[in-house]
Amino acid sequence: MTSPAPVHARTAGFLLIGNEILTGKIQDANLQPLAHTLRTIGVKLQACSVVSDQVQNIVLELDRMRSAVDIVFTSGGIGPTHDDVTLEAVACAFGVGLVSNPDLSLRLSRVYGKDLTDTHLLMARVPEGSVLLGNDDLAWPIVCQGNVWTLPGIPELFRSKLTIVRQYLRGPSSFYSAWVMLTLDESAIKRELDAVAAEYADVEVGSYPKWFDPHYKTKVTFDGTEQQRVNLALERLLDHLPKSAVVQSQAAACPT
Amino acid sequence: MTSPAPVHARTAGFLLIGNEILTGKIQDANLQPLAHTLRTIGVKLQACSVVSDQVQNIVLELDRMRSAVDIVFTSGGIGPTHDDVTLEAVACAFGVGLVSNPDLSLRLSRVYGKDLTDTHLLMARVPEGSVLLGNDDLAWPIVCQGNVWTLPGIPELFRSKLTIVRQYLRGPSSFYSAWVMLTLDESAIKRELDAVAAEYADVEVGSYPKWFDPHYKTKVTFDGTEQQRVNLALERLLDHLPKSAVVQSQAAACPT
Repeated sequence: MTSPAPVHARTAGFLLIGNEILTGKIQDANLQPLAHTLRTIGVKLQACSVVSDQVQNIVLELDRMRSAVDIVFTSGGIGPTHDDVTLEAVACAFGVGLVSNPDLSLRLSRVYGKDLTDTHLLMARVPEGSVLLGNDDLAWPIVCQGNVWTLPGIPELFRSKLTIVRQYLRGPSSFYSAWVMLTLDESAIKRELDAVAAEYADVEVGSYPKWFDPHYKTKVTFDGTEQQRVNLALERLLDHLPKSAVVQSQAAACPT
Repeated sequence: MTSPAPVHARTAGFLLIGNEILTGKIQDANLQPLAHTLRTIGVKLQACSVVSDQVQNIVLELDRMRSAVDIVFTSGGIGPTHDDVTLEAVACAFGVGLVSNPDLSLRLSRVYGKDLTDTHLLMARVPEGSVLLGNDDLAWPIVCQGNVWTLPGIPELFRSKLTIVRQYLRGPSSFYSAWVMLTLDESAIKRELDAVAAEYADVEVGSYPKWFDPHYKTKVTFDGTEQQRVNLALERLLDHLPKSAVVQSQAAACPT
């Protein structure tokens, strides 16, 4: 069953599932693309957790996240092997069983043709009541159970699923972002930063020192849902700093 | 005050603090080096969370993590600007105030010399009762409050602090790791993997498909605290697969 209706969400959480990340074997590559995608569609990524491949851990974290945000994305653990337990955990969290999905079985049979095995078909087992998101010709759609969307862990596949996320998910408002790079230390601009942050409480003002960059020492960012306010906050800071301290700056134009 | 005594811990958690990660502006670069470091000293990294720069969020997450693991590392939010609230949150979580630390003030005055300002000295404020880890000649030691060690967010500085972590932290046992890269799909080796995972329940067997690598299709990893068991698990799998399927393999030698 394919659901074409857009889903509305204000906040999101991301649950990275995988021992390989917690043991330092690999560096996660999925958080940033998801965070960026959510930003462009106006959904606030509020939390991210990494947990090991154990059903009990995943269920606990799913329960906690589901109650805190509107939509939860998972990454990893949806293959056919013993350490792929994400869908089992999702089913458990929702108090349903895992059932074979005829639509997914059909898609898998198209992928593997005459080489299709019972092991491949294990990947057609989804929590009872799941909805598949993605065109019918897609081998691996996103399996959604309630407000939990399960994405693959392999970075290339994960990123390909973000197209579906953009297609179906809607946030309440766009985010606007402006920034300036300065040759001054954070300490030297603290007073002006404090003033801007206090005056523009609706704009998130972030200050990021660079210790090992020959071009600038501090990047200040301005984020908010009102384009004009974001740009006014940037201008307010620039007005109070010497022009020679500004390496580069960018006002908020399109939503980012 | 510098504490030279080693700290013993079995499990660890990592709390990444920063809006810049949750908004997708930057990719985290600190989790993997910490995970790898903990692995080499035999401490199990059990959980990782990313939270925004808000005291209340950080306190909640600190409380949750502190009760679940032996030691918690934080990253980010220890500079002098308005969005640096990590130490305030740590103080709050421990029910103490922030106080100026004479040792840190001295170190800061050595760094900034005649340019030292009150803003710089804000970075000498630590939770009451904190211990500093790191040689006396270090400008920024690690500030430890109870079982919470606060590390900087800037990746180059973060990594430099891992030397101190290695110096002071001890795990109960070494971890051993072995692996094999195969030309076979996960689905084709599932039966053999299940058998090894069942027979070697004390060894973590991980299976990681590669979809876009011309050299191999699946990497299987074996992790445990008994070197011999890890290697027996690897051998058990190799014995049941055709030799031609093995691209490369590595038995567990030194602790990793």
